[in-house]
Amino acid sequence: MTLSSIAKILETEFSYNDIEITGMNALKDATSSEVSFVANSKYIKDIQGTKAAAVIVPASLVEYVPAGCAALVVENSYWSMATLSQAFAPVIENDALPIAEIGEGSKISSKAEIANGAKIGKNCTILAHVYIGAEAVIGDNTIIYPSVTVYRDCKIGSDCIIHANTVIGADGFGFATNNLGEHKKIYQNGNVVIEDDVEIGSNVSIDRAVFGTTLIKKGVRIDNLVQIGHNCEIGEYSVFVAQSGSAGSTKLGRNVVVGGQSAFAGHLEIAPFSTFAARSGVTNNIKESGKTYGGFPLLEQRTWLKLQVKIARLLK
Amino acid sequence: MTLSSIAKILETEFSYNDIEITGMNALKDATSSEVSFVANSKYIKDIQGTKAAAVIVPASLVEYVPAGCAALVVENSYWSMATLSQAFAPVIENDALPIAEIGEGSKISSKAEIANGAKIGKNCTILAHVYIGAEAVIGDNTIIYPSVTVYRDCKIGSDCIIHANTVIGADGFGFATNNLGEHKKIYQNGNVVIEDDVEIGSNVSIDRAVFGTTLIKKGVRIDNLVQIGHNCEIGEYSVFVAQSGSAGSTKLGRNVVVGGQSAFAGHLEIAPFSTFAARSGVTNNIKESGKTYGGFPLLEQRTWLKLQVKIARLLK
Amino acid sequence: MTLSSIAKILETEFSYNDIEITGMNALKDATSSEVSFVANSKYIKDIQGTKAAAVIVPASLVEYVPAGCAALVVENSYWSMATLSQAFAPVIENDALPIAEIGEGSKISSKAEIANGAKIGKNCTILAHVYIGAEAVIGDNTIIYPSVTVYRDCKIGSDCIIHANTVIGADGFGFATNNLGEHKKIYQNGNVVIEDDVEIGSNVSIDRAVFGTTLIKKGVRIDNLVQIGHNCEIGEYSVFVAQSGSAGSTKLGRNVVVGGQSAFAGHLEIAPFSTFAARSGVTNNIKESGKTYGGFPLLEQRTWLKLQVKIARLLK
Repeated sequence: MTLSSIAKILETEFSYNDIEITGMNALKDATSSEVSFVANSKYIKDIQGTKAAAVIVPASLVEYVPAGCAALVVENSYWSMATLSQAFAPVIENDALPIAEIGEGSKISSKAEIANGAKIGKNCTILAHVYIGAEAVIGDNTIIYPSVTVYRDCKIGSDCIIHANTVIGADGFGFATNNLGEHKKIYQNGNVVIEDDVEIGSNVSIDRAVFGTTLIKKGVRIDNLVQIGHNCEIGEYSVFVAQSGSAGSTKLGRNVVVGGQSAFAGHLEIAPFSTFAARSGVTNNIKESGKTYGGFPLLEQRTWLKLQVKIARLLK
Repeated sequence: MTLSSIAKILETEFSYNDIEITGMNALKDATSSEVSFVANSKYIKDIQGTKAAAVIVPASLVEYVPAGCAALVVENSYWSMATLSQAFAPVIENDALPIAEIGEGSKISSKAEIANGAKIGKNCTILAHVYIGAEAVIGDNTIIYPSVTVYRDCKIGSDCIIHANTVIGADGFGFATNNLGEHKKIYQNGNVVIEDDVEIGSNVSIDRAVFGTTLIKKGVRIDNLVQIGHNCEIGEYSVFVAQSGSAGSTKLGRNVVVGGQSAFAGHLEIAPFSTFAARSGVTNNIKESGKTYGGFPLLEQRTWLKLQVKIARLLK
Repeated sequence: MTLSSIAKILETEFSYNDIEITGMNALKDATSSEVSFVANSKYIKDIQGTKAAAVIVPASLVEYVPAGCAALVVENSYWSMATLSQAFAPVIENDALPIAEIGEGSKISSKAEIANGAKIGKNCTILAHVYIGAEAVIGDNTIIYPSVTVYRDCKIGSDCIIHANTVIGADGFGFATNNLGEHKKIYQNGNVVIEDDVEIGSNVSIDRAVFGTTLIKKGVRIDNLVQIGHNCEIGEYSVFVAQSGSAGSTKLGRNVVVGGQSAFAGHLEIAPFSTFAARSGVTNNIKESGKTYGGFPLLEQRTWLKLQVKIARLLK
């Protein structure tokens, strides 16, 4: 899509050299063929440092847009970003793509649906009612139980087990809201990548990234009914117990253990080898490795236990 | 079904004019061709004001049944209501219904199942392993991802997106219990209506109403793994973050924001533009619009934050 | 499999009479043709009393292995148990098994998948996209809604209703971890048994046992999005409200009521007729019948309510 046609979609003036734009991305990650956006003055440094071809920007922030980067000035830049995201959304299925490649020794149920453009490795077992979306890639020896849905463009490694009715790569929860309280979808044009030797329970939801990738690293273990928000990164060998979850963009180090019904707020960084007791509610970064936490608000677990004793004394 | 045959099912005496009964309903909503019930003396006013053709009632409350309304006197009226609910349950699928109507431009996977009597609008995308039940109706331009189940009689509007493995219209959680501790199912003969421009995440459960409708209004956004109980009404543009839920019959105004893992008790009324922080537990009505709450028990969020500071001081 | 071949898999010495081993089991439950294991000195009594043919054991505990029971000495017995569990895992589907038996009057969707070796009773309704695994057994009059997955070897009784997208018998969450932080799957070779007259909501996960059975007794009612861990036993007529759950090996008596978003830790015993308010967090055994609890840490509900009043006073 050309930059001038993007300006037309956003109903904004355009007085730059026209170039071909390949996609959208965050200010920090955008390349010279991508468009980015900014909605908030706290990202001024990111605007100044961006390599994006263009940035969707409110008039109040236009002065920070660097030379060589086109400023697409709009009233509500988050809303305009949502508008543009639709233009970059690929079709869900594409009959023009080649029929899926199936590796030697793989057993695919005739009641599974493997969309055109997908690639399945060797010696996989894909059971009935599974859906593998367009251009999705599955490694070798992976077992996918019934009614699992893998959305387009997602990648699952080798030696993985995905239990029944789990959903990999549905859209992250993203929308802009205008001053009438109406919402506009932000199309989630990223994907999910699951590395090798990962086991995921049943009825789990792992959302695709808005840009880039939601990443589940090697050796992770996820129990049932767990929620992983868009753009999360889950470190090697980390463990999520049932009914726990994470909001978007949170990054866990390796071997983090997340107790049942625990949850992380978004945009956090969690040190490796951290352990969270059941029902932990994590709203801040964890910088020191190897400690155990609990409660909401979160405390070190031994402190939380002490606090419960003190609270119980209020009854006397 | 005739009123006399209903009396026979309930094994109670019948000395009224016989009429045709079309269904069951709550005391307040029942019409003159419907049967209602009452189990509790706190609903005396509702008995007195009912327009129902008949009411299932214990002997202790029969005096409040208005003239012109037949009293079906039973020992355990809630149990008897459960018994009768089965008689009104429609069959799950009905081969005698006409083959589903599919609107122009809609793309239906050959691996989806569209039951007889269903109607799909124009330009819809229905992916593999979707189930659309008998007499369900889907509007125009709606996208339904794989393995979504829409039960019979439910309605989904136009421009909606339903993500994979979500269930619309399964039975609400209703049963009567006798004094031996045994349960009897209350058949959920209502439905779910989802208005236009609603997006629902993956692995969501929205239950059908016992009578009437579970209603999701225009522009609502629901994240993954959310529970909406029977007979809820969710106001326009309201937002449910992942793993939150509501028990039955709760009504939210417009633009209510429900944080992750939050929950509402049943039968509440929540003012519009209310915001609930993650993990809120809401057990009372919210009458004033536009405030932010948190905690369990629920407080205004700023008060909850203050309280946490006070609680932490107990450690000193 | 012979005991000597098991020793070879575990790379340990073997100087006993060779016998045929039929499976693995817990120390207390193992028969004279089964292998067990012990990883912790707190189970010394169980080692001494075991009837297992052999026990996987670290050198430090070998002295407690009774006469007539072979000691398979390894460095990390839990890891070795995980290694061996794979050898006993049956294949997921087996074409050599006979085509499924379908009882008279049962209506099976042509879009359901009934694996070889399964048995469906009389007058069942099995809707589209259901998966019934190898050698699974379904009783009479049972209704299974779309996209339910029943894994191999699981049993569902008569007069049950299983709502859409629920998963019965996926692997329990079990793995051994070595000192590099890597995980090895413990194959879950047990099953799930659901007795008669049970209703289960949508998007529920009930895990199969590691050995033996996860048991849901007669008349139980389970709402949506509930998690039941491996080897749990849920007493007759017990009730789980939405988004609640139990970790593994917890046993509930009859008519226990579990409020929404509540949870049990693993390995607990809960007295019959106990009631847990919404959001209860249960971490200890409940010995006395008929009481009502709430909170986390758990208190009697009336005490918890009093405590909340005291806590609120901290604001003054």
